[in-house]
Amino acid sequence: MAGVIFCKEVDFVVKRQGNTMFFENTPCVAGYGSAVGKKESEGPLKGEFDKVIYDSYAGTESFEKAESVFIREAVSMAIGKAKIKAEDIGLAFAGDLLNQCTASSLGLRDYKMPYIGVYSACSTMALSLLLSSVSVESGATSYALSAASSHFCSAERQYRFPLEYGSLRTPTSQWTVTGAGCCILKGKGNTNDDDIFIPCATVGVINDLGVTDQNNMGAAMAPAACDTLENFLRDTNTSPDDYDAIFTGDLGVLGSELFRELIKKDIGYTLTNHKDCGVLMYGDDKTVCCGGSGAGCCASVLCSHILPSMMSKRYKNVLFMATGALLSPTSVSQGESIHSIAHLINFRCK
Amino acid sequence: MAGVIFCKEVDFVVKRQGNTMFFENTPCVAGYGSAVGKKESEGPLKGEFDKVIYDSYAGTESFEKAESVFIREAVSMAIGKAKIKAEDIGLAFAGDLLNQCTASSLGLRDYKMPYIGVYSACSTMALSLLLSSVSVESGATSYALSAASSHFCSAERQYRFPLEYGSLRTPTSQWTVTGAGCCILKGKGNTNDDDIFIPCATVGVINDLGVTDQNNMGAAMAPAACDTLENFLRDTNTSPDDYDAIFTGDLGVLGSELFRELIKKDIGYTLTNHKDCGVLMYGDDKTVCCGGSGAGCCASVLCSHILPSMMSKRYKNVLFMATGALLSPTSVSQGESIHSIAHLINFRCK
Repeated sequence: MAGVIFCKEVDFVVKRQGNTMFFENTPCVAGYGSAVGKKESEGPLKGEFDKVIYDSYAGTESFEKAESVFIREAVSMAIGKAKIKAEDIGLAFAGDLLNQCTASSLGLRDYKMPYIGVYSACSTMALSLLLSSVSVESGATSYALSAASSHFCSAERQYRFPLEYGSLRTPTSQWTVTGAGCCILKGKGNTNDDDIFIPCATVGVINDLGVTDQNNMGAAMAPAACDTLENFLRDTNTSPDDYDAIFTGDLGVLGSELFRELIKKDIGYTLTNHKDCGVLMYGDDKTVCCGGSGAGCCASVLCSHILPSMMSKRYKNVLFMATGALLSPTSVSQGESIHSIAHLINFRCK
Repeated sequence: MAGVIFCKEVDFVVKRQGNTMFFENTPCVAGYGSAVGKKESEGPLKGEFDKVIYDSYAGTESFEKAESVFIREAVSMAIGKAKIKAEDIGLAFAGDLLNQCTASSLGLRDYKMPYIGVYSACSTMALSLLLSSVSVESGATSYALSAASSHFCSAERQYRFPLEYGSLRTPTSQWTVTGAGCCILKGKGNTNDDDIFIPCATVGVINDLGVTDQNNMGAAMAPAACDTLENFLRDTNTSPDDYDAIFTGDLGVLGSELFRELIKKDIGYTLTNHKDCGVLMYGDDKTVCCGGSGAGCCASVLCSHILPSMMSKRYKNVLFMATGALLSPTSVSQGESIHSIAHLINFRCK
């Protein structure tokens, strides 16, 4: 690898403060892509997605295989926009909600990229971006890919009931987004002054306040979001007002209220710049109850709405914090409470 | 974080060649621990494990909860041997085979460590160690934990049949190990000359030769092991004879034969120093058919047999290459072939 000079006298390229990692070389966004289903394409973000796949089966014979098509499409879009080849991706971080994360591995199988499977439920995209940042920062790869997906139909039958039951939804429930997002980061040597960059990221800690209602994920995840944001603000010595927007993914309507209440109670801030990807995705569509969820929700909102809004300079300093409920149908049926986590990425541009 | 100096003039601390990452600061092993079940404790590695839990339920009311006890015990042992506190762990990488990887997240929940869920089937331990290496190398954390677990009873009913069926096993099948392993890495500033260190690691690429028999995982995974080893040898310009031992995890008896045949065919080497964790675990016990498997197999063999053998200088230069079959019961029933991956870690000591 020509041109790489080892760091002989000093040790680290990442500085750690609390649970926050600061990146000296500042990983930059090389490209991003999104693919969503019909329902998602008709919401408030209509027209912002790269690709809409109207067929729930995406031309395959199962919802699970369809999900791998969504992630493949998002990856393909991101590679195209980054103006690189698939072979340039040195590490591909990806995950989803399916048992054994098969949507990701099947979706990326044909790309022949070095593959790193991650599992962090709906916070998968933020975790992938955090690991990608450390990787391009250290020199482990020049380009790192982060991707996440979900599919309403594959999630519904895995986590809840067969679709054919047509079962009623509780008012606190959320609607799994059919979609995927992919974001490619690049390291020093390939970056430009006008790139969106990542100065720092905060890794999450598992929180568990004893919520056992799997139809109220927002309540289970709000404390994790609160914990990570508070850690981030303390580690960076900043306040919520320093950011143009704080995006959570995907607390939904109820979880967002709880999150803002907790922040108010804990650190005395009334958040005025908070938005939730799960709320943004479907707006006031009542059929989705509390809003969108699923690993593909915040991933596709990031890659269709947030990053483009930074490209157009609407936002210049954004927090992207994805939350995940680390439950399984088995853990819930065995009476375990829903333990949650949130990882945070700070995106900036000049 | 006092004493950290940023690398101002040069860029990277990890050098990449092909799919292999070279670590200038050489992450070192701080401590390791293992916990296994009764059957595992009676095999050839008898007496080498830190803890044996004779009750399949490990004092809990389900096999899934029991699995989280195994991983918690292994983590506890490793922290003790590393002579650090749980709070010193800045990043905890962990994974298992259960749907949504709940054994790991429940096992680590109470530790309050920054948690990073990974999924790479039976190659989870090697993937965790690879990501831990990049993390301590870059300064993202001073101590990184890698852990993986599996449990015969939880795996059997999730992947195959309820235990109560007493179903017959095919001759090519493998036996999921009940156990867990945990290894803690430390970065520059905390290392000693006589530590076991990791000079390099190779990330895997998904391989799929079209095998669809989920009772013959060895055959599905052997090409992935072959691919990663060949990449590693090319990237490092070394030959198999340069290593005291090449450990695969967990190809089993048949997969190991296929692996050695493929290596012989591809690069003309007759491997004389190859050992397989799945074979080591149960020896010639015929009830396990082709040997052990499961994310906890190579993790517990690494932390009970391989690393201690390096501490006693029996081995000084070892390759630890874990293979994973990225299938799910759903993907198999939908006719997908079994796509596999292998990640490799080079352990050395002076």
